[in-house]
Amino acid sequence: MWSRAAFLALFLLPATPALADEGMWTFHSPPKKLLKEKYGFELSDAWLEHVRLASVRFNSGGSGAFVSPKGLAITNHHVGLDSLHKLSTPAHDYVQDGFYARSQAEELKCQDLELNVLVAMTDVSERVKSAVAADATPEEAVKQRRAAIGAIEKEAFDASGLRTDVVTLYRGGEYWLYQYRQYKDVRLVFAPEGQIGFFGGDPDNFTYPRFNLDFSVFRVYEDDKPAATPHYLQFSPDGVAEGDLLFVSGNPGSTNRLQTLVQIEYLRDRSRPRALDTIAYLGAALREYAARGAEEERQTKDMLFGLENSRKAYTGELKGLLDEALMLRKAEEEAALREEVAKRPELAEEIGGAWDEIAEAQALIAEQDDRFYYGRLRSDLAGKALTIVRYVAEVEKPNGERLPEFRDSNLDNLKFSLFSEAPIYPGLDETMLRAGLELAAEHLPPDDPLLELLLGGKEPAALAHALIAGTKLGDPAARKQLVEGGAAAVAASEDPLIALARSVDPLLREMQQRAEELSFRITQGQEKIARARFAVFGNSVYPDATFTLRLAFGVAKGYEEDTTLVPWKTNFYGLFGRCRAFDNKPPFDLPPNYLERESRIDLSAPIDFVSTCDITGGNSGSPTINRKGELVGLIFDGNIQSLPNSFVFADAADRAVSVHVAGILESLVKVYDAGPLAAELLGGM
Amino acid sequence: MWSRAAFLALFLLPATPALADEGMWTFHSPPKKLLKEKYGFELSDAWLEHVRLASVRFNSGGSGAFVSPKGLAITNHHVGLDSLHKLSTPAHDYVQDGFYARSQAEELKCQDLELNVLVAMTDVSERVKSAVAADATPEEAVKQRRAAIGAIEKEAFDASGLRTDVVTLYRGGEYWLYQYRQYKDVRLVFAPEGQIGFFGGDPDNFTYPRFNLDFSVFRVYEDDKPAATPHYLQFSPDGVAEGDLLFVSGNPGSTNRLQTLVQIEYLRDRSRPRALDTIAYLGAALREYAARGAEEERQTKDMLFGLENSRKAYTGELKGLLDEALMLRKAEEEAALREEVAKRPELAEEIGGAWDEIAEAQALIAEQDDRFYYGRLRSDLAGKALTIVRYVAEVEKPNGERLPEFRDSNLDNLKFSLFSEAPIYPGLDETMLRAGLELAAEHLPPDDPLLELLLGGKEPAALAHALIAGTKLGDPAARKQLVEGGAAAVAASEDPLIALARSVDPLLREMQQRAEELSFRITQGQEKIARARFAVFGNSVYPDATFTLRLAFGVAKGYEEDTTLVPWKTNFYGLFGRCRAFDNKPPFDLPPNYLERESRIDLSAPIDFVSTCDITGGNSGSPTINRKGELVGLIFDGNIQSLPNSFVFADAADRAVSVHVAGILESLVKVYDAGPLAAELLGGM
Repeated sequence: MWSRAAFLALFLLPATPALADEGMWTFHSPPKKLLKEKYGFELSDAWLEHVRLASVRFNSGGSGAFVSPKGLAITNHHVGLDSLHKLSTPAHDYVQDGFYARSQAEELKCQDLELNVLVAMTDVSERVKSAVAADATPEEAVKQRRAAIGAIEKEAFDASGLRTDVVTLYRGGEYWLYQYRQYKDVRLVFAPEGQIGFFGGDPDNFTYPRFNLDFSVFRVYEDDKPAATPHYLQFSPDGVAEGDLLFVSGNPGSTNRLQTLVQIEYLRDRSRPRALDTIAYLGAALREYAARGAEEERQTKDMLFGLENSRKAYTGELKGLLDEALMLRKAEEEAALREEVAKRPELAEEIGGAWDEIAEAQALIAEQDDRFYYGRLRSDLAGKALTIVRYVAEVEKPNGERLPEFRDSNLDNLKFSLFSEAPIYPGLDETMLRAGLELAAEHLPPDDPLLELLLGGKEPAALAHALIAGTKLGDPAARKQLVEGGAAAVAASEDPLIALARSVDPLLREMQQRAEELSFRITQGQEKIARARFAVFGNSVYPDATFTLRLAFGVAKGYEEDTTLVPWKTNFYGLFGRCRAFDNKPPFDLPPNYLERESRIDLSAPIDFVSTCDITGGNSGSPTINRKGELVGLIFDGNIQSLPNSFVFADAADRAVSVHVAGILESLVKVYDAGPLAAELLGGM
Repeated sequence: MWSRAAFLALFLLPATPALADEGMWTFHSPPKKLLKEKYGFELSDAWLEHVRLASVRFNSGGSGAFVSPKGLAITNHHVGLDSLHKLSTPAHDYVQDGFYARSQAEELKCQDLELNVLVAMTDVSERVKSAVAADATPEEAVKQRRAAIGAIEKEAFDASGLRTDVVTLYRGGEYWLYQYRQYKDVRLVFAPEGQIGFFGGDPDNFTYPRFNLDFSVFRVYEDDKPAATPHYLQFSPDGVAEGDLLFVSGNPGSTNRLQTLVQIEYLRDRSRPRALDTIAYLGAALREYAARGAEEERQTKDMLFGLENSRKAYTGELKGLLDEALMLRKAEEEAALREEVAKRPELAEEIGGAWDEIAEAQALIAEQDDRFYYGRLRSDLAGKALTIVRYVAEVEKPNGERLPEFRDSNLDNLKFSLFSEAPIYPGLDETMLRAGLELAAEHLPPDDPLLELLLGGKEPAALAHALIAGTKLGDPAARKQLVEGGAAAVAASEDPLIALARSVDPLLREMQQRAEELSFRITQGQEKIARARFAVFGNSVYPDATFTLRLAFGVAKGYEEDTTLVPWKTNFYGLFGRCRAFDNKPPFDLPPNYLERESRIDLSAPIDFVSTCDITGGNSGSPTINRKGELVGLIFDGNIQSLPNSFVFADAADRAVSVHVAGILESLVKVYDAGPLAAELLGGM
C-alpha cells in the first residue's frame, strides 16, 4: 500500500516512450490519440474538466474525489488515517473502532487536513526559461529560475487567492502554473475499523489478491456549511466487468523513469540498501518504545506501519533492480536512445554528453550523500525548531530569494502545519531523535562536521532525552510566540531544540545548496535526455510524476502468477476465507461487526479489483473511473510486481489495486447500518 | 498435481544428507533417531507395521490407504481417474458427474485396477552383490545381477504366490526383496464430480492455495466379498493444527538427488527443453483431435491434462534448474563431498573418479539419446504390438535372461494389462502415433536407421492411418490369440503393427541394451558417490525414490510468498470465493450440487492444507497421518516451489498439499447425502 511514509520517502529521490497502458498523463496533454486508437474512446474536454474538478488532492499525501454535490469526499482509509489518529484520544480510538457521523452535526473537524482541487493550469515555460540568462552559471541559473518562479507564484496568488505552484515537468522541459482551490475545513464522516481498512496488515501490503475496504469519507465545509461541489463522481450502478476501460485520476508522487543506468545502479548498490538498513534500525527502536504499554503502542502503530510499508516497497524495488533482465532492458533502452542521438549530428552535439554529465554529478552527490542522509533530525519537534529558525530568517528576504517552502504563496500552508494543535508524543519523538542520532554516530566519520554540531560530544540517548525534556515546542502557543517574535525572539531563545537548530542551520543550508546544485546538474542532464526523447520519439511521452494531477488508463484484468491465474476481482467469500484460514488471528482477524453480521452480507459481492493503470505512491485514494465518468473504485495499492515501476513500467503482471464501490456499499448498508450515507453516495440514482 | 503422466515421464530419467524435514525413508531404515531428537516422537515398530499394512499402492501410478476394516481404500480422484474413465460410457460419464454406490451391490468393478500392499521386506544385498564376479565386465555384471535378481524373484514368487520385486536402493548400495499382497478385484465406491476433484484445472495445478476435493473411494474384494483389511487408517476426529507432526506413507516415483552437476546440466540444457517442445507438439495434435466432437474431447481430456501437468512440472523444474542460486548450492554440495573424499586417501582412490566416469557415460548417452527419445511409438496399440512380439520371444528364454518385465514374477501383471478390456480409441491412437512419427521425422537425421525402419519412406500421417486402420489389435481376443499362438503365430501375422514391431524390435533391443549399459555405468558411478556419502555423512541418508513404500515426515505449516503469508489450510469460503471471482467460469466453475447446497455447507470447514513433508510424483493419494496413526489428509500435489525437489530438497516454501479429511466428510454428508459412506469412514468412532 502506498502509505504517506513510503510516498514521502520516494519523494526524496530524483521516463520512456509510452507503450501499452503506460503513462501518468497531464490533463493539459492527455493521451487522446492513444485512447482513440487503442480503445476507440473519445476523451472529450468536457469529460476531462469534469474529472479534474471532481478530483481531490489530500495534503496528507494522497488523492481522492468528490462523491456528492454536498462536499462529500472519498479517499483511502490509510490516507485518512493521519486525521483519524489526530482525532483519536485514549477514550475514542477511531483508528481501531472506526467512525460514523449519523448526522452532519456529528461530523468531526480535522485539525490540519487540507484538500486541494486543481482549478487552473497555465503554461509558463517561456517566462521561466527566458528568465535564465544565456551565460548564467548553473548556480546563477538556479537563482534566476527560482526568482522567476517565485514571482509567477506570487502574482498568481495575489490575483486569485488560490494556492499556486509552478510545477516543473519533463525535468524542466515545461513549467506550468497550477492553481488550486483549497478546502481547509474538512470533517470526518465515516471510517471503517482499521482492521478492515488494513485487512492483512503488513504481510498483505503490496500484494494481491486483497480484501481491504480501504476507504474513508470526509466532507468539505465552507462558512461552516457543506461546500457545494457540483463536479463529483457518481458511484457507478453498473459495476465493472473484466476488460472494461478504466481511468485513474490522482496525484502520483514521484517516478524516475528518466533515470540513467548510473543513477539506478546507485539506488541499487547504495541508496536502497542504506534505506533498508535504516528502516530496520528505526523499526527496532519504535518496537521497543511500543512495548512499554498500550498507549505507546497506539502512538507508534501508524509510524511502524509506514516503516514496514517502506521496507516492502524498497525490498520489492530492490528485487526489481537486482533482476538482471530488467536492468538489461533498461540498459538496452538507454543504449538505443544514445544510438539514435548519435545518428543525429546536431542532437548529438547538444545532448550527447548528458549521460556522462549525470554520471559525474552522481559521483559528486555520493560524496556528501551519507552526511545528508544521516544528518536528518528524525524528530517532529526538532523539525519544527528548524522550520522556526528558518522562517524568521527567510521572511525577511525578498520573496524570490527565499527557500521554496517559505515563499509567500506557501506561508499559509506552512503556518497551518507549524501551529497545528495535533498532539506530538514526547516519548515517541525522543525515540526517533535518539535513533536518528545513533545512526548518524554509527555511519558518519567521528570528525564529520555535521555530526560534531549535532552531538557536541554527547551520547545520543542522553542528548535526545535532554533535548525533548527541555523543549517547550510541544506547545503550539510557544511555536507561535517564537514566530511572531521574529529573528530577535529566536536568537534570544534558550529552548534547547531552537539552540540546536540555530547551530546546525548554516551547515545544513550549505549542504542543501550543494545538493540543489548537483540536483540541478542532473536535472540539466535529464532535461537534455528528455529533449532527446522528444526529438526521437515525438510527442508520445508523459512527464515523470510530480505529485500533481495525472490521468492514467488501463483495463480491469487478471494476470498469471506462478503458472496460475489471479482473478481480476476478489469478494467477501475470500475475505472470510482468509480470516478463517488464519483462524481469525491478527492481522487476518475481522472486526466483530463482520463476524456478527456475516449472514446479512452477499458474500459474492466484490471487494477489490485490479487494473493495468499506471500508478505509484501518491495515487492512494485516486478515483478509478469508467468511460461514463462514474466512480467504480478507489486505488489503494499496487501488487508486488508493480514495485519496480518507479523506474520502468515493467511487467505483464504489474497491477493497480482498487477497492470496488460495490464492496463499499455492501459494507455501509449491511455492516454499518449507514444507509443514509450510502443513499447520499448513490444520490440521484 | 502429480498425475500418472508426469510420474511416468519422470520415471524415464536416471541424493544429499538428510536435513530438516527431508527424506523419503524406507520402512526398514526409518528415521527413528531423527524423529526422537527433533520431535520427541517414538516411531515404534508396531506403528510402522500398522501404517505399512494400511498403505496401498495403485498400479495406475499412485498411492492410497485402507480406511475401513471392510476393504475400503481411499486415494486421489486423479489416481482413480483412469478407472473412472474406463468405466465411463457415452451414457454414463463418471468423470464429469461422479459416482456413488448407495449399496455394495452398486459398486462398480474396475477393469484393470490393481492394488498392492507391501507385506514383506527382505534384505538380499549380499546375494545380489555376490552374484557378480569380481572380474566381470560391466556388461557381464548386468547379466549376472539380472540373473540373480530373476532367481530371487522367482523363488519368492513360487514360495508365496505374492507379487515379488527386487528393489535397487542407494543406486545399488542395497537390494531388497519386496513382496506384495495383490488385490485385483477393485470396485468403485465413490467419486466426486471431476470439476471439484480438479477444481481450478490446469491453471491451479502445482499451486497453492488450493481448493480441491481430490479423492475417490474404492473397495477391494476377495471371492466376490469385501476383503477384510484389519490394518486401516481411522479418519481422525481431531483434525490437524498448524505445527502438528505429520507423516506421509506412500510410493514416491523417482528422485534424482544423487545426480551430479553434469547430469543436471544435461537435464537443464537438453532433456527438459526437448520434453517441453515435445509436449507442445503432442498437445497441439491432441487438441486438434479433441476439436472434432464431444466424444473426442472426452477421450483426450485425461491425456491432455497429463501433458499440461507434465508441462507445468517441467517448467517449474526448469525454473529451478535455471535458478543460479540453486545450481550454485548443488555445485557447492558436490564440491564439498569431493573435497571430503579427497581428504581420505582410500576413499579417494576407490571413489574419486566417479564424477568423471559419470560425465563420460553421460556424454555417450547424449549420442543416442535423441534416437531413443524420438523413436518411441506413442501409440497404445503399437506398444501392445511390441509387447506381443517380445513376449513370445522372451518367454522361451530362461527366466534370468529375460528382459525384466517378462520375468515369471511379472507375467500375470503383464497379461492383466495386455489383455485388458479397457477401450482403446483408434482415432486418438492414430493421432498419437502420427504426432510421434512426425516428431521423429523432424528431429532425427533423414538417414537415421531407426527412422528408416519406422517410416519405410512413407509420410507419417498416411502411415499412421494405414497402420491403425489395418490392425486388429484393438480387440483383446486378437492379442490373446497371438500370445497363445507363440513365436510361430507372431512370425506369421500379417497385422501391420505386428509387422512394424517385428521390424524395429532388433534395433530397439540393441539401443535398449546400450542404454542399460550406459545407465549401469552411471549407476556404478552413483553407487560410488552413494558410498562416499555413507562414508562421509554416516547413516543419516535415505535412498532416492523408486516407486516403493516410503515414510516422509514434517509439520503442517504455512509459508511466506512474495512477502505475504500463505495460510497452512484453505476452506470452503475460499472455494466459493475463487469460483465467484472468476464468475463461475471453467476451470473455476463449481458442480451444480455445490451451488445448490451452499447454505448447508460449513464454509469455514477446511478443504486442503500444506505440510513440509518431502514428497514427489507417485505420492498422489498417500495418506497423511498424525502421531496416533490416524488419517488427517490425502497428499495430492506439491506447490510450485516444490518442483525442483526432484534434484534438491530446496526451499523454506517447498510444501506438500493434502486434501483435509474434514473437507471430505463435509462434502460427503452435506453435498452428496453419502451419510452411510461417511459413517463407514468414521466407523468405530
